[in-house]
Amino acid sequence: MHEPPPIPPLRERKQQRIRESIIEAADSLFEQHGFANVTVTDIARHCDVGRTTFFRYFGDKQEVMFADEQNYVEMLTEREHATTTDGAGTLGEGIDQLRPIVLQMCRHAVRNPDRYRLHERLILENPELRDRDNRKLEKYCSALRGILTARGVDDRTASLAAHLALACYHAGRHTARSTSTSLPEAVASAFDQLAAQPE
Amino acid sequence: MHEPPPIPPLRERKQQRIRESIIEAADSLFEQHGFANVTVTDIARHCDVGRTTFFRYFGDKQEVMFADEQNYVEMLTEREHATTTDGAGTLGEGIDQLRPIVLQMCRHAVRNPDRYRLHERLILENPELRDRDNRKLEKYCSALRGILTARGVDDRTASLAAHLALACYHAGRHTARSTSTSLPEAVASAFDQLAAQPE
Repeated sequence: MHEPPPIPPLRERKQQRIRESIIEAADSLFEQHGFANVTVTDIARHCDVGRTTFFRYFGDKQEVMFADEQNYVEMLTEREHATTTDGAGTLGEGIDQLRPIVLQMCRHAVRNPDRYRLHERLILENPELRDRDNRKLEKYCSALRGILTARGVDDRTASLAAHLALACYHAGRHTARSTSTSLPEAVASAFDQLAAQPE
Repeated sequence: MHEPPPIPPLRERKQQRIRESIIEAADSLFEQHGFANVTVTDIARHCDVGRTTFFRYFGDKQEVMFADEQNYVEMLTEREHATTTDGAGTLGEGIDQLRPIVLQMCRHAVRNPDRYRLHERLILENPELRDRDNRKLEKYCSALRGILTARGVDDRTASLAAHLALACYHAGRHTARSTSTSLPEAVASAFDQLAAQPE
Protein backbone atom coordinates (compact mmCIF):
# COMPACT_ATOMS: atom_id res chain seq x y z
CA MET A 1 0.00 0.00 0.00
CA HIS A 2 2.79 2.41 0.98
CA GLU A 3 5.10 3.70 -1.69
CA PRO A 4 8.66 2.57 -1.14
CA PRO A 5 10.82 5.36 0.32
CA PRO A 6 12.84 7.17 -2.35
CA ILE A 7 16.38 5.82 -2.77
CA PRO A 8 18.85 8.46 -1.56
CA PRO A 9 21.56 9.53 -3.99
CA LEU A 10 24.80 7.53 -4.13
CA ARG A 11 26.86 10.08 -2.22
CA GLU A 12 24.39 10.15 0.65
CA ARG A 13 24.24 6.35 0.79
CA LYS A 14 28.01 6.20 0.96
CA GLN A 15 28.06 8.73 3.82
CA GLN A 16 25.42 6.73 5.62
CA ARG A 17 27.54 3.57 5.24
CA ILE A 18 30.65 5.25 6.63
CA ARG A 19 28.68 6.70 9.51
CA GLU A 20 27.22 3.31 10.36
CA SER A 21 30.62 1.61 10.11
CA ILE A 22 32.08 4.15 12.58
CA ILE A 23 29.19 3.46 14.98
CA GLU A 24 29.69 -0.30 14.69
CA ALA A 25 33.44 -0.07 15.17
CA ALA A 26 33.00 2.15 18.22
CA ASP A 27 30.38 -0.13 19.78
CA SER A 28 32.52 -3.19 19.23
CA LEU A 29 35.58 -1.54 20.80
CA PHE A 30 33.58 -0.05 23.70
CA GLU A 31 32.15 -3.49 24.39
CA GLN A 32 35.57 -5.15 24.44
CA HIS A 33 37.66 -2.52 26.20
CA GLY A 34 35.24 -0.19 27.99
CA PHE A 35 34.35 3.33 26.89
CA ALA A 36 37.19 5.05 28.75
CA ASN A 37 39.93 2.90 27.20
CA VAL A 38 39.03 3.50 23.56
CA THR A 39 40.33 6.50 21.61
CA VAL A 40 39.09 8.12 18.41
CA THR A 41 42.26 6.82 16.73
CA ASP A 42 41.32 3.24 17.78
CA ILE A 43 37.84 3.66 16.32
CA ALA A 44 39.08 5.18 13.05
CA ARG A 45 41.67 2.42 12.64
CA HIS A 46 39.11 -0.31 13.41
CA CYS A 47 36.84 0.76 10.54
CA ASP A 48 39.60 1.79 8.16
CA VAL A 49 38.98 5.51 7.97
CA GLY A 50 41.28 8.37 8.87
CA ARG A 51 40.85 10.53 11.96
CA THR A 52 39.88 13.43 9.69
CA THR A 53 37.03 11.37 8.27
CA PHE A 54 35.94 10.42 11.78
CA PHE A 55 35.73 14.07 12.77
CA ARG A 56 33.73 14.86 9.63
CA TYR A 57 30.98 12.65 11.09
CA PHE A 58 31.32 13.00 14.86
CA GLY A 59 32.69 15.62 17.25
CA ASP A 60 34.14 13.03 19.64
CA LYS A 61 33.66 9.43 20.77
CA GLN A 62 30.72 10.39 23.02
CA GLU A 63 28.88 11.70 19.98
CA VAL A 64 29.11 8.28 18.34
CA MET A 65 27.14 6.77 21.22
CA PHE A 66 24.50 9.49 20.97
CA ALA A 67 24.33 9.39 17.16
CA ASP A 68 20.54 9.06 17.22
CA GLU A 69 19.91 12.14 19.31
CA GLN A 70 19.82 14.66 16.48
CA ASN A 71 17.32 12.51 14.57
CA TYR A 72 15.04 12.38 17.60
CA VAL A 73 15.18 16.10 18.19
CA GLU A 74 14.40 16.73 14.50
CA MET A 75 11.55 14.25 14.64
CA LEU A 76 10.14 16.00 17.71
CA THR A 77 10.53 19.42 16.11
CA GLU A 78 8.68 18.22 13.02
CA ARG A 79 5.83 17.12 15.28
CA GLU A 80 5.85 20.54 16.85
CA HIS A 81 5.41 22.17 13.47
CA ALA A 82 2.78 19.66 12.33
CA THR A 83 0.48 21.30 14.83
CA THR A 84 -2.89 19.64 15.05
CA THR A 85 -4.84 21.56 17.64
CA ASP A 86 -6.69 18.50 18.83
CA GLY A 87 -7.63 19.92 22.19
CA ALA A 88 -4.87 19.10 24.64
CA GLY A 89 -5.85 21.67 27.23
CA THR A 90 -5.68 19.77 30.51
CA LEU A 91 -2.73 18.04 32.10
CA GLY A 92 -4.26 14.62 31.48
CA GLU A 93 -4.83 15.39 27.80
CA GLY A 94 -1.28 16.69 27.50
CA ILE A 95 0.14 13.46 28.97
CA ASP A 96 -2.09 11.42 26.63
CA GLN A 97 -0.66 13.30 23.67
CA LEU A 98 2.95 12.79 24.72
CA ARG A 99 2.54 9.11 25.56
CA PRO A 100 2.66 7.75 21.97
CA ILE A 101 5.63 10.00 21.16
CA VAL A 102 7.63 8.74 24.16
CA LEU A 103 6.69 5.14 23.38
CA GLN A 104 7.80 5.58 19.78
CA MET A 105 11.16 6.85 21.03
CA CYS A 106 11.45 3.80 23.29
CA ARG A 107 10.68 1.37 20.48
CA HIS A 108 13.22 3.14 18.31
CA ALA A 109 15.84 2.99 21.08
CA VAL A 110 15.57 -0.80 21.41
CA ARG A 111 15.24 -1.64 17.71
CA ASN A 112 18.76 -3.07 17.89
CA PRO A 113 18.54 -4.85 21.28
CA ASP A 114 22.25 -5.69 21.57
CA ARG A 115 23.28 -2.12 20.88
CA TYR A 116 20.68 -0.85 23.35
CA ARG A 117 21.89 -3.20 26.10
CA LEU A 118 25.51 -2.24 25.47
CA HIS A 119 24.70 1.49 25.60
CA GLU A 120 22.70 1.09 28.80
CA ARG A 121 25.61 -0.72 30.42
CA LEU A 122 28.13 1.91 29.25
CA ILE A 123 25.90 4.72 30.53
CA LEU A 124 25.59 3.06 33.94
CA GLU A 125 29.35 2.52 34.16
CA ASN A 126 30.56 5.92 32.99
CA PRO A 127 29.56 9.09 34.82
CA GLU A 128 30.42 11.24 31.80
CA LEU A 129 27.99 9.22 29.66
CA ARG A 130 25.31 9.57 32.33
CA ASP A 131 25.81 13.32 32.17
CA ARG A 132 25.55 13.22 28.41
CA ASP A 133 22.43 11.09 28.61
CA ASN A 134 20.82 13.53 31.03
CA ARG A 135 21.56 16.43 28.69
CA LYS A 136 19.90 14.50 25.89
CA LEU A 137 16.81 13.90 28.01
CA GLU A 138 16.66 17.59 28.95
CA LYS A 139 16.54 18.40 25.24
CA TYR A 140 13.78 15.85 24.66
CA CYS A 141 11.85 17.29 27.59
CA SER A 142 12.00 20.81 26.13
CA ALA A 143 10.95 19.44 22.76
CA LEU A 144 7.97 17.61 24.33
CA ARG A 145 6.97 20.80 26.11
CA GLY A 146 7.28 22.64 22.78
CA ILE A 147 4.90 20.19 21.08
CA LEU A 148 2.21 20.98 23.66
CA THR A 149 2.70 24.74 23.77
CA ALA A 150 2.54 24.78 19.95
CA ARG A 151 -0.88 23.14 20.37
CA GLY A 152 -2.01 25.94 22.65
CA VAL A 153 -1.37 24.35 26.05
CA ASP A 154 -0.22 26.89 28.64
CA ASP A 155 3.49 26.74 29.43
CA ARG A 156 3.06 25.61 33.05
CA THR A 157 0.82 22.64 32.14
CA ALA A 158 2.95 21.78 29.11
CA SER A 159 6.10 21.73 31.25
CA LEU A 160 4.49 19.56 33.92
CA ALA A 161 3.11 17.14 31.31
CA ALA A 162 6.53 16.88 29.64
CA HIS A 163 8.29 16.21 32.95
CA LEU A 164 5.67 13.65 33.98
CA ALA A 165 6.04 11.89 30.62
CA LEU A 166 9.82 11.83 31.14
CA ALA A 167 9.23 10.49 34.66
CA CYS A 168 7.31 7.56 33.14
CA TYR A 169 10.25 7.00 30.83
CA HIS A 170 12.73 7.04 33.74
CA ALA A 171 10.62 4.74 35.89
CA GLY A 172 10.13 2.34 32.98
CA ARG A 173 13.84 2.36 32.28
CA HIS A 174 14.51 1.53 35.93
CA THR A 175 12.11 -1.43 35.66
CA ALA A 176 13.59 -2.58 32.34
CA ARG A 177 17.07 -2.51 33.86
CA SER A 178 16.15 -4.60 36.88
CA THR A 179 13.63 -7.04 35.35
CA SER A 180 13.14 -8.82 32.03
CA THR A 181 10.43 -6.35 30.93
CA SER A 182 11.27 -4.56 27.68
CA LEU A 183 11.69 -0.78 27.76
CA PRO A 184 8.58 0.08 25.70
CA GLU A 185 6.46 -2.31 27.76
CA ALA A 186 7.74 -0.98 31.09
CA VAL A 187 7.28 2.65 30.03
CA ALA A 188 3.75 1.94 28.76
CA SER A 189 2.94 0.35 32.09
CA ALA A 190 4.23 3.43 33.96
CA PHE A 191 1.93 5.62 31.84
CA ASP A 192 -0.94 3.24 32.65
CA GLN A 193 -0.21 3.44 36.36
CA LEU A 194 -0.10 7.24 36.19
CA ALA A 195 -3.40 7.41 34.29
CA ALA A 196 -5.09 5.06 36.78
CA GLN A 197 -4.47 7.19 39.86
CA PRO A 198 -5.98 8.66 41.91
CA GLU A 199 -8.73 6.08 42.19
CA MET B 1 8.44 25.02 73.99
CA HIS B 2 11.31 23.44 72.06
CA GLU B 3 14.63 22.97 73.82
CA PRO B 4 17.34 25.05 72.20
CA PRO B 5 19.65 22.91 70.03
CA PRO B 6 22.83 21.89 71.87
CA ILE B 7 25.78 24.21 71.21
CA PRO B 8 28.41 22.33 69.16
CA PRO B 9 31.93 22.17 70.60
CA LEU B 10 34.34 25.02 69.81
CA ARG B 11 36.34 23.04 67.25
CA GLU B 12 33.23 22.17 65.30
CA ARG B 13 31.97 25.75 65.40
CA LYS B 14 35.29 26.95 64.05
CA GLN B 15 35.16 24.42 61.22
CA GLN B 16 31.63 25.49 60.42
CA ARG B 17 32.79 29.13 60.25
CA ILE B 18 35.63 28.33 57.88
CA ARG B 19 33.35 26.24 55.72
CA GLU B 20 30.81 29.04 55.53
CA SER B 21 33.49 31.64 54.76
CA ILE B 22 34.74 29.51 51.85
CA ILE B 23 31.18 29.24 50.50
CA GLU B 24 30.66 33.00 50.80
CA ALA B 25 33.97 33.81 49.15
CA ALA B 26 33.24 31.41 46.30
CA ASP B 27 29.73 32.78 45.73
CA SER B 28 30.97 36.34 45.73
CA LEU B 29 33.72 35.55 43.19
CA PHE B 30 31.42 33.41 41.00
CA GLU B 31 28.95 36.26 40.96
CA GLN B 32 31.56 38.83 39.91
CA HIS B 33 33.65 36.82 37.46
CA GLY B 34 31.54 33.81 36.43
CA PHE B 35 32.07 30.24 37.58
CA ALA B 36 34.57 29.30 34.86
CA ASN B 37 36.92 32.23 35.54
CA VAL B 38 37.42 31.58 39.27
CA THR B 39 40.08 29.17 40.57
CA VAL B 40 40.42 27.42 43.93
CA THR B 41 43.44 29.65 44.58
CA ASP B 42 41.26 32.75 44.05
CA ILE B 43 38.68 31.44 46.50
CA ALA B 44 41.25 30.50 49.14
CA ARG B 45 42.94 33.90 48.85
CA HIS B 46 39.60 35.73 49.04
CA CYS B 47 38.76 34.21 52.42
CA ASP B 48 42.29 34.12 53.77
CA VAL B 49 42.84 30.39 53.96
CA GLY B 50 45.46 28.25 52.26
CA ARG B 51 44.71 25.90 49.37
CA THR B 52 45.37 22.95 51.71
CA THR B 53 42.66 24.20 54.05
CA PHE B 54 40.29 24.63 51.12
CA PHE B 55 40.82 21.02 50.08
CA ARG B 56 40.20 19.84 53.63
CA TYR B 57 36.64 21.13 53.22
CA PHE B 58 35.87 20.71 49.51
CA GLY B 59 37.12 18.48 46.71
CA ASP B 60 36.94 21.23 44.10
CA LYS B 61 35.12 24.49 43.34
CA GLN B 62 32.04 22.63 42.10
CA GLU B 63 31.69 21.01 45.50
CA VAL B 64 31.42 24.43 47.13
CA MET B 65 28.32 25.17 45.10
CA PHE B 66 26.80 21.82 46.04
CA ALA B 67 27.79 22.06 49.71
CA ASP B 68 24.25 21.29 50.86
CA GLU B 69 23.90 18.06 48.93
CA GLN B 70 25.42 15.75 51.54
CA ASN B 71 23.13 17.19 54.23
CA TYR B 72 20.10 16.52 52.06
CA VAL B 73 21.09 12.96 51.30
CA GLU B 74 21.71 12.31 55.02
CA MET B 75 18.37 13.88 55.88
CA LEU B 76 16.65 11.64 53.34
CA THR B 77 18.48 8.55 54.58
CA GLU B 78 17.43 9.33 58.14
CA ARG B 79 13.83 9.45 56.96
CA GLU B 80 14.33 6.12 55.28
CA HIS B 81 15.45 4.58 58.56
CA ALA B 82 12.71 6.27 60.57
CA THR B 83 10.30 3.93 58.83
CA THR B 84 6.70 4.53 59.74
CA THR B 85 4.66 2.00 57.81
CA ASP B 86 1.73 4.32 57.41
CA GLY B 87 0.24 2.58 54.44
CA ALA B 88 1.77 4.04 51.33
CA GLY B 89 0.82 1.18 49.05
CA THR B 90 -0.62 2.87 45.97
CA LEU B 91 1.06 5.31 43.62
CA GLY B 92 -1.11 8.18 44.87
CA GLU B 93 -0.24 7.45 48.49
CA GLY B 94 3.45 7.24 47.59
CA ILE B 95 3.35 10.66 45.91
CA ASP B 96 1.48 12.09 48.92
CA GLN B 97 4.24 10.83 51.20
CA LEU B 98 7.02 12.31 49.08
CA ARG B 99 5.35 15.68 48.58
CA PRO B 100 6.19 17.18 52.01
CA ILE B 101 9.77 15.92 51.74
CA VAL B 102 10.30 17.54 48.34
CA LEU B 103 8.64 20.77 49.55
CA GLN B 104 10.91 20.82 52.60
CA MET B 105 13.92 20.52 50.28
CA CYS B 106 12.60 23.41 48.20
CA ARG B 107 12.09 25.65 51.23
CA HIS B 108 15.59 24.79 52.39
CA ALA B 109 17.04 25.54 48.95
CA VAL B 110 15.60 29.07 48.90
CA ARG B 111 16.25 29.97 52.56
CA ASN B 112 18.97 32.33 51.32
CA PRO B 113 17.20 33.82 48.27
CA ASP B 114 20.22 35.68 46.88
CA ARG B 115 22.39 32.59 47.02
CA TYR B 116 19.62 30.52 45.45
CA ARG B 117 19.17 32.97 42.57
CA LEU B 118 22.93 33.11 41.98
CA HIS B 119 23.23 29.32 41.95
CA GLU B 120 20.30 28.96 39.56
CA ARG B 121 21.91 31.46 37.20
CA LEU B 122 25.30 29.72 37.38
CA ILE B 123 23.67 26.33 36.75
CA LEU B 124 21.85 27.66 33.68
CA GLU B 125 25.03 29.24 32.32
CA ASN B 126 27.49 26.38 32.90
CA PRO B 127 26.91 22.97 31.32
CA GLU B 128 29.24 21.32 33.84
CA LEU B 129 27.13 22.66 36.72
CA ARG B 130 23.98 21.42 35.00
CA ASP B 131 25.54 17.97 34.82
CA ARG B 132 26.46 18.17 38.47
CA ASP B 133 22.97 19.32 39.37
CA ASN B 134 21.45 16.41 37.45
CA ARG B 135 23.68 13.96 39.31
CA LYS B 136 22.49 15.46 42.58
CA LEU B 137 18.87 15.06 41.56
CA GLU B 138 19.50 11.43 40.55
CA LYS B 139 20.78 10.80 44.08
CA TYR B 140 17.72 12.48 45.60
CA CYS B 141 15.48 10.42 43.36
CA SER B 142 17.08 7.16 44.55
CA ALA B 143 16.77 8.33 48.14
CA LEU B 144 13.07 9.16 47.65
CA ARG B 145 12.52 5.72 46.13
CA GLY B 146 14.37 4.21 49.12
CA ILE B 147 12.04 5.96 51.57
CA LEU B 148 9.03 4.32 49.95
CA THR B 149 10.52 0.84 49.51
CA ALA B 150 11.58 0.93 53.20
CA ARG B 151 7.88 1.51 53.93
CA GLY B 152 6.95 -1.60 52.00
CA VAL B 153 6.00 -0.05 48.64
CA ASP B 154 6.96 -2.27 45.70
CA ASP B 155 10.03 -1.11 43.80
CA ARG B 156 8.18 -0.32 40.56
CA THR B 157 5.59 1.91 42.24
CA ALA B 158 8.22 3.51 44.48
CA SER B 159 10.39 4.33 41.49
CA LEU B 160 7.48 5.83 39.55
CA ALA B 161 6.35 7.89 42.58
CA ALA B 162 9.90 9.19 43.10
CA HIS B 163 10.27 10.17 39.45
CA LEU B 164 6.85 11.83 39.39
CA ALA B 165 7.71 13.78 42.56
CA LEU B 166 10.95 14.90 40.90
CA ALA B 167 8.95 15.84 37.79
CA CYS B 168 6.85 18.17 39.97
CA TYR B 169 10.07 19.66 41.27
CA HIS B 170 11.42 20.19 37.74
CA ALA B 171 8.18 21.69 36.47
CA GLY B 172 7.96 23.97 39.52
CA ARG B 173 11.55 25.04 39.00
CA HIS B 174 10.77 25.86 35.36
CA THR B 175 7.84 28.02 36.51
CA ALA B 176 9.89 29.69 39.26
CA ARG B 177 12.59 30.57 36.71
CA SER B 178 10.20 32.16 34.25
CA THR B 179 7.70 33.84 36.60
CA SER B 180 7.79 35.56 39.98
CA THR B 181 6.38 32.49 41.75
CA SER B 182 8.67 31.16 44.49
CA LEU B 183 10.11 27.66 44.08
CA PRO B 184 8.20 26.05 46.99
CA GLU B 185 4.94 27.62 45.82
CA ALA B 186 5.44 26.57 42.18
CA VAL B 187 6.38 23.00 43.16
CA ALA B 188 3.39 22.73 45.51
CA SER B 189 1.14 23.88 42.69
CA ALA B 190 2.62 21.20 40.35
CA PHE B 191 1.82 18.54 42.98
CA ASP B 192 -1.72 19.97 43.23
CA GLN B 193 -2.17 19.81 39.48
CA LEU B 194 -0.93 16.21 39.40
CA ALA B 195 -3.27 15.20 42.24
CA ALA B 196 -6.25 16.85 40.53
CA GLN B 197 -6.07 14.81 37.32
CA PRO B 198 -7.68 12.90 35.77
CA GLU B 199 -10.95 14.60 36.49
